Amino acid sequence: MTQVALMNQVVEWVNEAADQIREKLKSPIMVEEKSNRHDLVTNVDKETEAFLVEKIRTNYPDDHILGEEGLGDNLSDTKGRIWVIDPIDGTLNFVKQQENFCIMIGIFEDNVPILGFIYDVVKDEFAYGGAKTGVFLNSQSVNQVENVCLRDGLIGVNGAMFCHNTFNVRDIAIEAVGVRMLGCAGLDFLNVIRGKQNGYISNLAPWDFAAGVALSEPLGLKCSKFDGSPYDILGERQYFLVATQKTYEEIANY
Amino acid sequence: MTQVALMNQVVEWVNEAADQIREKLKSPIMVEEKSNRHDLVTNVDKETEAFLVEKIRTNYPDDHILGEEGLGDNLSDTKGRIWVIDPIDGTLNFVKQQENFCIMIGIFEDNVPILGFIYDVVKDEFAYGGAKTGVFLNSQSVNQVENVCLRDGLIGVNGAMFCHNTFNVRDIAIEAVGVRMLGCAGLDFLNVIRGKQNGYISNLAPWDFAAGVALSEPLGLKCSKFDGSPYDILGERQYFLVATQKTYEEIANY
Repeated sequence: MTQVALMNQVVEWVNEAADQIREKLKSPIMVEEKSNRHDLVTNVDKETEAFLVEKIRTNYPDDHILGEEGLGDNLSDTKGRIWVIDPIDGTLNFVKQQENFCIMIGIFEDNVPILGFIYDVVKDEFAYGGAKTGVFLNSQSVNQVENVCLRDGLIGVNGAMFCHNTFNVRDIAIEAVGVRMLGCAGLDFLNVIRGKQNGYISNLAPWDFAAGVALSEPLGLKCSKFDGSPYDILGERQYFLVATQKTYEEIANY
Repeated sequence: MTQVALMNQVVEWVNEAADQIREKLKSPIMVEEKSNRHDLVTNVDKETEAFLVEKIRTNYPDDHILGEEGLGDNLSDTKGRIWVIDPIDGTLNFVKQQENFCIMIGIFEDNVPILGFIYDVVKDEFAYGGAKTGVFLNSQSVNQVENVCLRDGLIGVNGAMFCHNTFNVRDIAIEAVGVRMLGCAGLDFLNVIRGKQNGYISNLAPWDFAAGVALSEPLGLKCSKFDGSPYDILGERQYFLVATQKTYEEIANY
């Protein structure tokens, strides 16, 4: 199967998942706390992950899966094809706002990101594609991102990092023309790949960045752990940076 | 003229202004710095203010106007009817993202807010109304906002205040379930009046809050300067708080 065919197939699955989510938003949502009161999960997160995992297991039984809600595999290496799933990224927004959340899937092959999918369900903005297929937003090809420097653009930051000035994030943010805090990594990636923010600094689990890196790198953006080392899709939560080349280098010097 | 008739007339003007803005977004925008590089103005801000001011002057020659871009009056008291205009709230977003900005108009009579209008132009979400007319979002009546306490909701904050921990805003924000920074007061008000955020703390000029208070107070929300004193539509930029009653009281105790 070509990457384009795979991309189109996953676009269909994600659209189907989004339809189910829209339907479920009409009824009350069941919310539970995970690690703490800022970290929620709902029946819709779990059901959406189950739906996507079932599609992958049925169609690609030899592939591996990492999923936020625990239906994936325990992986010890990055060989073969790995699907990294966040069924609802921005669960707090989902619960409190019923919008500003995304479905995200990243597909890696031998540790190389090949395809990413980020769907802002309520706004109906769907970015998908990768290095070989090209990147699309709602069927339109997405252009290379302009290489904007830090002080000429908006930067997205993680609230806790900004609060504690982790890695001097507050100083970096002051240098930018403005700071945004959206509570959903997928929304930040959608902004960065469309040139609406020149970077995003956060503390992310693999399912928070897998789709984003697959979409960002082909558009000329740079992604890594905050210390410059490669991001790790088998790792725990990691300080993460995506930015234009210029912004990335400026931030590296803070 | 009844307040309902006035409301409907202004809804038409704002829709017309929004159509013009959408049209202008198809051509390059002319951007200038005002007080500093974070404070921009464009030809579209100026032209939109001119359009709205002309409508008001023609239809209501005895009324007074306060406008962000300087086409209004110099007022020394709050007698009579005063229109407070922000033609494009969130100009940085307008310039860098071509979305996430609002048209805002607040109408005061003898210092009492009677009508407010906030239109997220690109998302096409238009809130309008007041205490006597009721509050509407895209023609649907908006319900009283649930009286949520600080730790059960999201709070919107101003980036500079969060950065410098002005009035312990960082401590307040940590108590909330999550912090959002949108770069546009109108978007925060739209969230608060729809129960999607339980408050918003910022440093605002009268044109940044006039529309918002006219919409918020009838829905059971509380608005004032951050120190609890009444907001001042003739004043300079002022630390400002809008929140549910419970959240407001909790914040007052920080």
